[in-house]
Amino acid sequence: MAGSTFGTLFRVTTWGESHGGGIGCVVDGCPAGLELSEEDIQKYLDRRKPGQSRYTTGRSEADRVRILSGVFEGKTEGTPISLLVENTDQRSKDYSNLKNLYRPGHADFGFDEKYGLRDYRGGGRSSGRETIGRVAAGAIAAKALSQLGIRLRAYVKAIGGIECDPARYDEEYLKTSPLQMPDPDADKKAREYLNGCIRDLDSSGGVIECVIDGMPAGVGEPVFDKLDALFGQALFSIGAVKAVEVGDGVLAAAARGHENNDQYAEEPETGKPVKMTNHAGGILGGMTDGSQVIVRAYFKPTPSIAREQRALGSDGHVHTMTITGRHDPVIVPRAAVVVECMCAVTVFDLLLRGMTSKMENLEKIYP
Amino acid sequence: MAGSTFGTLFRVTTWGESHGGGIGCVVDGCPAGLELSEEDIQKYLDRRKPGQSRYTTGRSEADRVRILSGVFEGKTEGTPISLLVENTDQRSKDYSNLKNLYRPGHADFGFDEKYGLRDYRGGGRSSGRETIGRVAAGAIAAKALSQLGIRLRAYVKAIGGIECDPARYDEEYLKTSPLQMPDPDADKKAREYLNGCIRDLDSSGGVIECVIDGMPAGVGEPVFDKLDALFGQALFSIGAVKAVEVGDGVLAAAARGHENNDQYAEEPETGKPVKMTNHAGGILGGMTDGSQVIVRAYFKPTPSIAREQRALGSDGHVHTMTITGRHDPVIVPRAAVVVECMCAVTVFDLLLRGMTSKMENLEKIYP
Amino acid sequence: MAGSTFGTLFRVTTWGESHGGGIGCVVDGCPAGLELSEEDIQKYLDRRKPGQSRYTTGRSEADRVRILSGVFEGKTEGTPISLLVENTDQRSKDYSNLKNLYRPGHADFGFDEKYGLRDYRGGGRSSGRETIGRVAAGAIAAKALSQLGIRLRAYVKAIGGIECDPARYDEEYLKTSPLQMPDPDADKKAREYLNGCIRDLDSSGGVIECVIDGMPAGVGEPVFDKLDALFGQALFSIGAVKAVEVGDGVLAAAARGHENNDQYAEEPETGKPVKMTNHAGGILGGMTDGSQVIVRAYFKPTPSIAREQRALGSDGHVHTMTITGRHDPVIVPRAAVVVECMCAVTVFDLLLRGMTSKMENLEKIYP
Amino acid sequence: MAGSTFGTLFRVTTWGESHGGGIGCVVDGCPAGLELSEEDIQKYLDRRKPGQSRYTTGRSEADRVRILSGVFEGKTEGTPISLLVENTDQRSKDYSNLKNLYRPGHADFGFDEKYGLRDYRGGGRSSGRETIGRVAAGAIAAKALSQLGIRLRAYVKAIGGIECDPARYDEEYLKTSPLQMPDPDADKKAREYLNGCIRDLDSSGGVIECVIDGMPAGVGEPVFDKLDALFGQALFSIGAVKAVEVGDGVLAAAARGHENNDQYAEEPETGKPVKMTNHAGGILGGMTDGSQVIVRAYFKPTPSIAREQRALGSDGHVHTMTITGRHDPVIVPRAAVVVECMCAVTVFDLLLRGMTSKMENLEKIYP
Repeated sequence: MAGSTFGTLFRVTTWGESHGGGIGCVVDGCPAGLELSEEDIQKYLDRRKPGQSRYTTGRSEADRVRILSGVFEGKTEGTPISLLVENTDQRSKDYSNLKNLYRPGHADFGFDEKYGLRDYRGGGRSSGRETIGRVAAGAIAAKALSQLGIRLRAYVKAIGGIECDPARYDEEYLKTSPLQMPDPDADKKAREYLNGCIRDLDSSGGVIECVIDGMPAGVGEPVFDKLDALFGQALFSIGAVKAVEVGDGVLAAAARGHENNDQYAEEPETGKPVKMTNHAGGILGGMTDGSQVIVRAYFKPTPSIAREQRALGSDGHVHTMTITGRHDPVIVPRAAVVVECMCAVTVFDLLLRGMTSKMENLEKIYP
Repeated sequence: MAGSTFGTLFRVTTWGESHGGGIGCVVDGCPAGLELSEEDIQKYLDRRKPGQSRYTTGRSEADRVRILSGVFEGKTEGTPISLLVENTDQRSKDYSNLKNLYRPGHADFGFDEKYGLRDYRGGGRSSGRETIGRVAAGAIAAKALSQLGIRLRAYVKAIGGIECDPARYDEEYLKTSPLQMPDPDADKKAREYLNGCIRDLDSSGGVIECVIDGMPAGVGEPVFDKLDALFGQALFSIGAVKAVEVGDGVLAAAARGHENNDQYAEEPETGKPVKMTNHAGGILGGMTDGSQVIVRAYFKPTPSIAREQRALGSDGHVHTMTITGRHDPVIVPRAAVVVECMCAVTVFDLLLRGMTSKMENLEKIYP
Repeated sequence: MAGSTFGTLFRVTTWGESHGGGIGCVVDGCPAGLELSEEDIQKYLDRRKPGQSRYTTGRSEADRVRILSGVFEGKTEGTPISLLVENTDQRSKDYSNLKNLYRPGHADFGFDEKYGLRDYRGGGRSSGRETIGRVAAGAIAAKALSQLGIRLRAYVKAIGGIECDPARYDEEYLKTSPLQMPDPDADKKAREYLNGCIRDLDSSGGVIECVIDGMPAGVGEPVFDKLDALFGQALFSIGAVKAVEVGDGVLAAAARGHENNDQYAEEPETGKPVKMTNHAGGILGGMTDGSQVIVRAYFKPTPSIAREQRALGSDGHVHTMTITGRHDPVIVPRAAVVVECMCAVTVFDLLLRGMTSKMENLEKIYP
Repeated sequence: MAGSTFGTLFRVTTWGESHGGGIGCVVDGCPAGLELSEEDIQKYLDRRKPGQSRYTTGRSEADRVRILSGVFEGKTEGTPISLLVENTDQRSKDYSNLKNLYRPGHADFGFDEKYGLRDYRGGGRSSGRETIGRVAAGAIAAKALSQLGIRLRAYVKAIGGIECDPARYDEEYLKTSPLQMPDPDADKKAREYLNGCIRDLDSSGGVIECVIDGMPAGVGEPVFDKLDALFGQALFSIGAVKAVEVGDGVLAAAARGHENNDQYAEEPETGKPVKMTNHAGGILGGMTDGSQVIVRAYFKPTPSIAREQRALGSDGHVHTMTITGRHDPVIVPRAAVVVECMCAVTVFDLLLRGMTSKMENLEKIYP
């Protein structure tokens, strides 16, 4: 599984299973001189912490992060930053009945086929806890980006079929919304919908949107490492994501050219050119065009539901199974920060790569 | 732009602009002993060739591929395969008026910002001709996959809002359909729709679906290099793709867990376990589950339209511009083979990587 | 410093400074199903532990390794193996006088120039303690290799000018030799030589040889990732290495073709072909030829000596300085296991990569 | 053989066999805005061209390079630069007798074992002609470096046992020396020595030294991607190299610390600090220290000699063979430019990587 590393220059390697000594990551390639404390990272981890509302798992973990290396006298050194969160609230017994059954909607069967064995405790490497490493790394990227005037915000765009109305976007409301929805109306309806799911021993999917402001133009490499291509990898690499879109996304495929192209106009007073629309979501040919970047990830419903299901067993037969234990009826409220952090890592890596795009940049660094 | 390489073990590096000496790629890491001729590759290139119908550009190019290295006595040697298609039908003058204007929906502005200069002839590196290298490489991957019993098929799922009905899928019809739609009804309606677009000096988007049969279970790496994550990168890296989805994709976000989970049943006669549905599109936790893999790419309408548009100029002012030259009113019929080939490259690379997943595999190779 | 990762498929990422929370590594890509315990790794770490004789530093650290992830029920899972050794014996005060002085023979000046700051405590990232991560990773690779019948042995070939005579190679003696020299005579002379160095407040360089038995032919990739090329990177990446050679190495440059070529003969009784010499050190064109692999690393003398030296200061002036603290008068006895482990990682990674060299191998894994 | 690419940001992918359509490379990641013509590259290729003296092969090839992409109006575009040299002087028949015999000192046996087949014509991928791609890429790197004030010079340091005396270094003489030796005396003796080799149907090894002036301090990444580590990979990846050393290299292992450390003094008039010696060869801890960089590669004698040799056959028996055809009695005069070019590629890639080492550099590029 040499596939636990993401990024070319800002390289994030995550490790850890839901059960075991802990979860963590190594961030190699963070530029030196960035002020960084454990608290900077903890703030992001707290946003994905379980146990925040009745809509997320009852598992309660402190999830305190330790910086083991790479920071000296409060600043990054340019050396690998090793981050560790110890696993504390482990109840292995919850999972023992899963040893010989492949849960519907989970990767259990694939693990057994690929590796010949499987850590059946809590999803092992496919556990949602793996995202702790991503969030910790993303917190660092986001802090570096903020110093360059780049700001990311991810929130829940939809749960089930209930969608936020952009016109009702309320940043203050978002701060306390347990569902991480910025539209109070949608939030209320979504809570009712989720209560129904819980009642029915069922779960719900949802959509997360991330918008990025302050991006310079030209970020992204024009062929395989387009900004949107790496968003595609970054977001699909989050468990449960089944679709990713940029700007108008799916809708663009049904549009006509004259509708979808973003045209320019000059502002009446200043004469400054402005894009009149942003169907492209700020990305053209894989590079930013200087406007707001908009990307969305579609999450399937939590596959672990308390209903009886018919599942494949390692004996080659089909069995009836019931999944017990603590599971989120909807994952998107906790996943918003994961999406934001993966976007931060993606953008920061491409910003670093973009520094070498022209000879005149070299002359600024090596005068 | 060190971003022209895709893959870890089966590595494809594309090069070339629409104008210049040619277009090509180097495929490094193809296993030795695969029978390979120029004709094997040409067949795929012919599927993306322009000039096949009134719905695609009138540019006519032979696009004959030459194998410059890596094949000896009709078989791959295990060494890099260098593939070259020379550019022949170049009319640079068509593009001279674009030097100082940034076309709406194109990457022109990003190029200038990033590199300080730009090949304004026909999109330069962002030209659709860049996909020639991808198709050539994909033809090799697809041939290798076919020897392992894996078959890929990509076709046009929708144009504008007109969608193929899976119940009317007609593989014979598809072979001659200029729009690459397997449903004759949808194909007919889409042609009418496109005639309207052409009349209106407009263009249309569309959707391409790729299905893959014969996949073993366990293909894909469980964290950042999930099969769907690399599909995400591979497909978003094709110019004009604005969304990618796997299985139910976008719809999964509005579903409930009990609807979206794929359950199993035993076949009455044989007792063989079968998945009763395939909402997952054959991928769970980033790995194949042994069933059919289904992935879709959503393409925006061709941005080059003959209508007058208001565009940013390199002088910082907004100008009215009209794009002349030869452009496809819809790109998806020619892009189907590109999607298929990028999927083939992605799958083959992950199959190679998966060979090292367990010690018992090593013992088979190094007894 | 995105350069803390080594390997393509068996990927080792080390992290940690001599002072800080600890030292460790993440090994991604180890095949599943390898039996692995902390003790397997500890045995190797103990070979590089300080405080074993008067010829190595008095720093005494337990250097106990913990496996934080990737092992389940005593076997590797195929997921990243995170290894942690906590720093325990830190006396930061020893180093405070080095804040503004660049020690001769050390990288201090380079760090300040490159990163704008520097962890001046004990060499920071350039500390010999960084090799803990390499040894821990190498222990895993070596264990996997041993299951394929491949065995590595590294020992001290020379200290100062005193060289071991291959004719006196004594494997039993080597096990207890504090200098890790397999020739008892040379070992005795080297001890006398080192006593002189210690008396003179000076230090000595030395040579480490690693021989590898049981290698199949064809390991190594023929162009940039030749086995010897990756040995070159692996061994030069160990601090203090100033030269690397394979087989006859430096001497080959003064030889003639008929002397340097290894010819074959048939064994009189069996008719089996055998190489009559091994000037090539088992590598031709970057690939193994099936015979013993021989590689050597030349280490400079420990730069930290107690003598007064004239060094550059961060104020741009030259200052007289005396380095105190605990330092090895010769590093090679402790570095032998580091060389062995870097060779193990290099070889195992290339063995994994070589599995994909031909189509018939794929058919063995995906029948 | 996914191992034909070198570099992280300035990425060179070579392709081609000695027989086939041609030889070339793709350079991805060259910054935009560098003036570049085919003549810039041709100058370097001409330095490795065969047929320049009686000491090199009689094969005569024009070896004219074509730039197929990546250059627009005389400047690099930031897109991949594809370079092609067609094979013209091919006499395949020369090699037909080698189909079933493994030449001593060549990789023939390894190829057959690894790939199950082998291009037996002229060494295939292991041919010296593979270095054409390296030289072409290196010419670009060297031109970019020269704009930053960095200059590389490689020359023959020794042939057989005959070594140049640094005190007699004559840059003018070097320009016309067919042996590429800068010391006229050594050059004369070496010619006599080579005449003896030719008479004896034998060949000679030699040593190439590359010195680099104008390097800023801090170039190189401190752990696995040290400047010397990547020199190690780069130079060992040239066929026939059996040892690589930096600065005092092999001799450092026999020195004492106080001899080997480079101390500083202040220049009497200016007070400027200067290193009094350069035993380190300009590299400490894998990073430049701002002084001259010195690296050496040791080449074995050309293995193709006209003498009768006893070789392994593909039938498992030992056969007497005589190699005919055109071969260099010594390779180092033609290899000097290859060493220089590999050093240029290595240095330029690390310079690009180093741009991201600290936050203040980002602020210069993204103000």
